[in-house]
Amino acid sequence: MITRTTALALDAADPLAKFRELFHIPDPTVIYLDGNSLGMPPKRTLERLTEVYEHDWATGLIRSWEHWLDLPQRVGNALAPLIGAGEGEVVLHDNTTLNVYQAVHGAIGLRPGRRAIAISADDFPTDRYVVDGIAAATGHAVQNDFEDLDDVAVVVRSVIDYRTAALVDVAAETARAHAAGAMVVWDLSHAAGAVEIDLRACGAQLAVGCTYKYLNGGPGAPAWTFVARELHDTIRQPIWGWFATENQFAMAPDFQPRADIARMMLGTPSVLALVAAECGISLSAEAGMKAIHTKGSALTEFAIELCDQLGFSTPTPRDRTRRGNHVAIEHRDAKAIVRELAARNVIFDFREPNIIRAGCSPLTTRFVDVFDGISAIAR
Amino acid sequence: MITRTTALALDAADPLAKFRELFHIPDPTVIYLDGNSLGMPPKRTLERLTEVYEHDWATGLIRSWEHWLDLPQRVGNALAPLIGAGEGEVVLHDNTTLNVYQAVHGAIGLRPGRRAIAISADDFPTDRYVVDGIAAATGHAVQNDFEDLDDVAVVVRSVIDYRTAALVDVAAETARAHAAGAMVVWDLSHAAGAVEIDLRACGAQLAVGCTYKYLNGGPGAPAWTFVARELHDTIRQPIWGWFATENQFAMAPDFQPRADIARMMLGTPSVLALVAAECGISLSAEAGMKAIHTKGSALTEFAIELCDQLGFSTPTPRDRTRRGNHVAIEHRDAKAIVRELAARNVIFDFREPNIIRAGCSPLTTRFVDVFDGISAIAR
Repeated sequence: MITRTTALALDAADPLAKFRELFHIPDPTVIYLDGNSLGMPPKRTLERLTEVYEHDWATGLIRSWEHWLDLPQRVGNALAPLIGAGEGEVVLHDNTTLNVYQAVHGAIGLRPGRRAIAISADDFPTDRYVVDGIAAATGHAVQNDFEDLDDVAVVVRSVIDYRTAALVDVAAETARAHAAGAMVVWDLSHAAGAVEIDLRACGAQLAVGCTYKYLNGGPGAPAWTFVARELHDTIRQPIWGWFATENQFAMAPDFQPRADIARMMLGTPSVLALVAAECGISLSAEAGMKAIHTKGSALTEFAIELCDQLGFSTPTPRDRTRRGNHVAIEHRDAKAIVRELAARNVIFDFREPNIIRAGCSPLTTRFVDVFDGISAIAR
Repeated sequence: MITRTTALALDAADPLAKFRELFHIPDPTVIYLDGNSLGMPPKRTLERLTEVYEHDWATGLIRSWEHWLDLPQRVGNALAPLIGAGEGEVVLHDNTTLNVYQAVHGAIGLRPGRRAIAISADDFPTDRYVVDGIAAATGHAVQNDFEDLDDVAVVVRSVIDYRTAALVDVAAETARAHAAGAMVVWDLSHAAGAVEIDLRACGAQLAVGCTYKYLNGGPGAPAWTFVARELHDTIRQPIWGWFATENQFAMAPDFQPRADIARMMLGTPSVLALVAAECGISLSAEAGMKAIHTKGSALTEFAIELCDQLGFSTPTPRDRTRRGNHVAIEHRDAKAIVRELAARNVIFDFREPNIIRAGCSPLTTRFVDVFDGISAIAR
């Protein structure tokens, strides 16, 4: 029988507990189980924004672009080890929607003649909408399963399901797609900063994700694109901007895509947003993905056991190797409950049609938050 | 004969002089003539970022998205009167490169059968590159003049030339293009917050621009898109993201573009970047575009007279109604001079091949800055 004492004991033994002190939490009574939608603010983020405002923008003025120009790649390099990418294989830019658009176009260009794009009808809406938009423009068919990939140019797939937290076997599914001649664009929005993943070891070549969830990059923080080095010479994307061209300030007549990951960039990136993202990423890097994933699994295990005890049903996988760091609790009054609890400072997420989503963000979520939050649903 | 005393007298009589106190200028010895590349930081920006970090992000957490969701349109509405747009016709999002891409695609979709896109070979590189990329994908021809527009789907054109500051007659050129059946995408990057412009009175239907120059929105601040209301039902753009669909959180199977300006949006926008942009825009709104344009013209007039006096040649138009708020000074050693002066805190911009660009940003640039800066070139 799980009790609040169980939760407190688990918190006392948690090696990552001290990381919570590195976040700004003005209201200690808040029970926050939505770090999987918007991560809490690191204390260093405001310090760093203030420093960049004062030192770089106000004092350096335009001269600061000398060190801002490669900021998207520098922050990409900070993120790379957290997802098993190599140096120079990740760049932060724009948002996940745009990055999926580019990556899918890039993949299609590398698989001429293939007539379909495969995506699950259950995948996150923006991924599906982007694919539908591309298909409408190019004439590709949209295939809603991953069975027969022989005519598929590119598979677009979330590593972790945004509703159930089901985790795909990235290595196996990448290998199967590649064996069939298809490219794969992985969406790691719910995986980066949450679970251990080694994109290179999995054979992945293209991936995107956001940084505002488990990576604590701030509301609407820039997304990222991973392109395996072997594609840097050949991949093309359709939006030809000045940050992606060789010798940018030559203002040359013709666009010539850079030979590195920066060919995925577009226009002038938001420095303030990048700086905030960098701060969040640095905390996950310091904690280490192994420790983060271990705690995430323990938190979701605890949440699932508590659900069982309280009689809540959940579609979240029981096998910890097959799930991410949130737990979906099914309840016919999910929407009303989430709204009501939020007003009382107990914060979950609601997802259609009947899911209360409990996000377990290992750097900030305590076992006692999970206990108090799920118990509050029961009340 | 212009002297430093002339400059000081002009500053003393300047009704906008007090606005400079609203900016954070830690080094009072800096002579900044590059506000047309990166505007100086408003004091309120750091105050507001701190407030949003503390109150909205840290305290409100995910609940703050209730009032963040329409932030791109709210800031768009704050910008609208500065460019002669109506309520609901402007949205801040992404960057100019991306916004040009969308607007050109949107225009092409409204002019099926027309086979060309017209853009000057002298226009800003990212605009040209984007057009080249679209042409490569769609098979449109790129036409480098605006003479015969009978087969042109869309004209892409900067209102103010980024090198010479030459200002196009937007009303006349829009009317001529529309009479020929072509759409026009205006790029106001060097015009918004600099010169008085009334997009609606000019008959303009599509425009984009940045906010990090004269609008003081911060490094890499979000760009904006203007779409005249009469196109809101019909314009389509190729990147179908969840922020552009009706009833976003229904997570519906099919993308259904919103009936308003938000159909130009993509994914989750950066809240921090939008908040900073809003602060910069608010200062221009308080000063008023008439006063800003009047001072800008007086500053460039003063700069041109000083160039004449010092024997510098400039391609910037002498007619104040035909120029923006910067002055291009031609010098064979332009690049070295700009680098050398920057190290001495006298900051211009260099543009290939031989241009020293002196930006006159009416809210922060003093006549004495223009005098001291251009005199420093002579020394």
